[in-house]
Amino acid sequence: MKRVKNALGREVPIEVNGKQAVPFKGIGRYKPSGRKIGPPISSGADYTGSKVLKDLDEALDKLDLHNGMTVSFHHHLRNGDYIVNLVMEKLAQRGLKDVVLAPSALFPVHEPLVELIKRGVVSHVLGSMNGPVGRLCTTGGMKKTAVLRSHGGRYRAIQDGDLHIDIAFIAAPTADPHGNANGVQGPSACGPLGFALADSLYADEVVIITDNLVPFPAWPWSIEGGNVDYVVPIEKLGDPEKIVSGTTKVTTDPNRLKIASWAAQLVRDSGLIDEPEFSFQAGAGGMSLAFIQYVAEYMREKKVVADFVRGGSTETLVKMLKEGLTRFILDGQSFDLAGVASLRDNWNHIETNPFVSYNYHTKGCFAPRVKASVLGGTEIDLNFNVNVNTHSDGWLLHGIGGFQDAADAFMTIITVPLYRKTNPIVVDRVHTVTAPGDVIDAIVTDQGIAVNPKREDLLERLKSSNLPLVSIEELHEKAIRITGKPRKPRTKDNVVAVIEWRDGTIIDAVRELDI
Amino acid sequence: MKRVKNALGREVPIEVNGKQAVPFKGIGRYKPSGRKIGPPISSGADYTGSKVLKDLDEALDKLDLHNGMTVSFHHHLRNGDYIVNLVMEKLAQRGLKDVVLAPSALFPVHEPLVELIKRGVVSHVLGSMNGPVGRLCTTGGMKKTAVLRSHGGRYRAIQDGDLHIDIAFIAAPTADPHGNANGVQGPSACGPLGFALADSLYADEVVIITDNLVPFPAWPWSIEGGNVDYVVPIEKLGDPEKIVSGTTKVTTDPNRLKIASWAAQLVRDSGLIDEPEFSFQAGAGGMSLAFIQYVAEYMREKKVVADFVRGGSTETLVKMLKEGLTRFILDGQSFDLAGVASLRDNWNHIETNPFVSYNYHTKGCFAPRVKASVLGGTEIDLNFNVNVNTHSDGWLLHGIGGFQDAADAFMTIITVPLYRKTNPIVVDRVHTVTAPGDVIDAIVTDQGIAVNPKREDLLERLKSSNLPLVSIEELHEKAIRITGKPRKPRTKDNVVAVIEWRDGTIIDAVRELDI
Repeated sequence: MKRVKNALGREVPIEVNGKQAVPFKGIGRYKPSGRKIGPPISSGADYTGSKVLKDLDEALDKLDLHNGMTVSFHHHLRNGDYIVNLVMEKLAQRGLKDVVLAPSALFPVHEPLVELIKRGVVSHVLGSMNGPVGRLCTTGGMKKTAVLRSHGGRYRAIQDGDLHIDIAFIAAPTADPHGNANGVQGPSACGPLGFALADSLYADEVVIITDNLVPFPAWPWSIEGGNVDYVVPIEKLGDPEKIVSGTTKVTTDPNRLKIASWAAQLVRDSGLIDEPEFSFQAGAGGMSLAFIQYVAEYMREKKVVADFVRGGSTETLVKMLKEGLTRFILDGQSFDLAGVASLRDNWNHIETNPFVSYNYHTKGCFAPRVKASVLGGTEIDLNFNVNVNTHSDGWLLHGIGGFQDAADAFMTIITVPLYRKTNPIVVDRVHTVTAPGDVIDAIVTDQGIAVNPKREDLLERLKSSNLPLVSIEELHEKAIRITGKPRKPRTKDNVVAVIEWRDGTIIDAVRELDI
Repeated sequence: MKRVKNALGREVPIEVNGKQAVPFKGIGRYKPSGRKIGPPISSGADYTGSKVLKDLDEALDKLDLHNGMTVSFHHHLRNGDYIVNLVMEKLAQRGLKDVVLAPSALFPVHEPLVELIKRGVVSHVLGSMNGPVGRLCTTGGMKKTAVLRSHGGRYRAIQDGDLHIDIAFIAAPTADPHGNANGVQGPSACGPLGFALADSLYADEVVIITDNLVPFPAWPWSIEGGNVDYVVPIEKLGDPEKIVSGTTKVTTDPNRLKIASWAAQLVRDSGLIDEPEFSFQAGAGGMSLAFIQYVAEYMREKKVVADFVRGGSTETLVKMLKEGLTRFILDGQSFDLAGVASLRDNWNHIETNPFVSYNYHTKGCFAPRVKASVLGGTEIDLNFNVNVNTHSDGWLLHGIGGFQDAADAFMTIITVPLYRKTNPIVVDRVHTVTAPGDVIDAIVTDQGIAVNPKREDLLERLKSSNLPLVSIEELHEKAIRITGKPRKPRTKDNVVAVIEWRDGTIIDAVRELDI
């Protein structure tokens, strides 16, 4: 496979699975040409009967199943999802081979896929890698090259025609006989259904699977019936306790609390809170929740109301909304029951999808409108490149999620411990680049904070801050002093996965581990 | 121009404005092939600055203006709209020629277009014809052939690539700097913005013009900023008193009340009210409002709750929703202030657009889910063909509106007086076919009701009704007895406009009047 060095000096293939691939050229340097893809034109004449089928088998009888087809799923049911395994097992039973799996993410619950990949039912995955499937991929267990895309990148790839979906299977906590569907009502309520939007718009065939069939109209209709072929009732979409947590919990670890409080102070000291149009994004992890609480406290002190905060939504964000600390929650996925209930009941809690929030190939998504974005990572290097996909031992165990997209914020902050066990987190060179240093503005560790020197404006904003600002090199040296110089993973030449930047170019390649 | 007879025996051109045209083949007989059109792929890299411009002139400086381009507008501001005239006058000042105008509808306020057409600024109109522009068209005053499409047909034509829009100018009662826009807030609030949705999704360039610029996010975002190039603030979008009526009024004319009450009784006697999933659609005219009140009374008697009623919303419908007589209002346009306020404030009052409600080239829109649809017309003939475009004297004075789409209901009822002045309304042959008799189920006049004999199921349902059911021939004879045989309009051979059926085929051609 011919390879070239991309703008970051990473050697990447110029052809992936038989298709030409463009090496990463730098932020904003690659401009797409041409027009978005068009899905097949349908006729109402073919949809005069009922779309509601008896069961999944009847749907599979009607669908255009064929070897090598691409099927897609969304991940809003997270680790509680029953649907991916169920559908894929049925495809296996029907003797399908070389199916391309295009989920928006996978979770540990999807471990049975490993067996299906080994048996040749699934050829490869276009989407996120979870633990077990990622392990298989890292050791060369997939027939073709896996392609990892961010949430925004996945929407982009679908609309631009890079990722053609033959059949989209959409698990829907509520749906009506027309195919309208949402995720906020029903026993398997998960919150938004935005990760399935592109699939519903662009796939050749679209199947809604629901355990809560209601009379027309299911409202809200996050998925519109006009894009849906079949509606399949099923007893249970998943395990509600694993779909959303009962509650998400703030960290109590002192080290992680310190990181969270420094990140919040960084946002305060940069002056962003005092300026109009304040907004931020943070996740559902314990450290992120602590960050949110610290920022909320600063906002209370300063009597500031954010224009919006960005979910994944949690009880912590919902409380901010109820308290009037933010005008809106813009929510891509709900992580706990309070998040789901708020999205269902509160007009100012807005469901978003990757088109509006993350897709780079639009006339602007809202990611760059976020003032401060707080994200994690597995490694950060001296060029501020961040890795969220592979561990320092070379195992590909994570998807990109919204990382690349959320990093488009005015200030992107990575919160990480300086080291984990014997592994430094700030390294000389990340094993895999998920996002280039150009979009990463600050690294907050428990041993100091490094601001990207390219962000002179931020350094100027922070010049009277009492935060422990240090250089990235200092952080690296401190880490190495504690952990010792880590052994780099040994890899073979074989590329098992490529990491797409959100504009569709290849930012890095993941090589097979030599174990 | 070569012509053929279509499935209704109407002579229609097989080429319109240089493009091949398909003659109407019968309901559900023409199946599209190919894929929907893709709009140009954009890059976030080109939208890093502000989209908000100083004024319309700055937008026109930036846009790719060229002779022969197609520009589009929506009609939610109705006869209060200032934007069409303003933009078109500015294009004229800039010396543009042969501009193709693709509005979703025109109103009397747009009479200045007549002058622009005469001067060659505008070559022709692809969309509805209002009085003055229609008059000009009927006498051959346009350079090319006008194409009339229904609301659903317009969305279809845009998505299928039959109607390419270079620049969409979208008047938005509320918008934010990102380009998100809605019609429910602001001094020029009009209700839904759904008629502009296809324009925003498929036009090469999209300009939002607003007199209520609010901070991000404008919510709801009926139009999404990710599809918008520029946001232009303006002092006033239109005249609020003409955008929506203060109130819409029920007819007091005894003849029209009789028609309305018979139509309601027809719905009752057909048994539809007693069956699950009851729903209906009726407009904002005085007779339609009376119909709604009569139906509501039957529903109260029978303790029936409709699954939904279909707007155009009015105070009459809003009262039904508040009273609990319907679960939802599905609203394509609000006709009075109560309609706008309800759409803004009531969760169960849903904004719709022609994709979900009317577009035939989807996997099903919801038009066929409506149980009873009450519509008007200018003429109906012995084959139940309905004309809503031309008057019996041959003048093309009206658009199709949603007529063809709403006629997809289970029972489509035309409510008309038997004659108007000296014109019979039930005629032997309509001057122009807007919708074929196959989709028209009953004609309710003040002198009797004719049910389409093809609907044997309806006749069966109505066999114990005491309504004055007569044949269409009887209605025709009665009418002629009163008015005398009308003189048919004299036309030249020249086709000035074609009427598209909602599937994109040509159902009829309008010929130049010989006056």
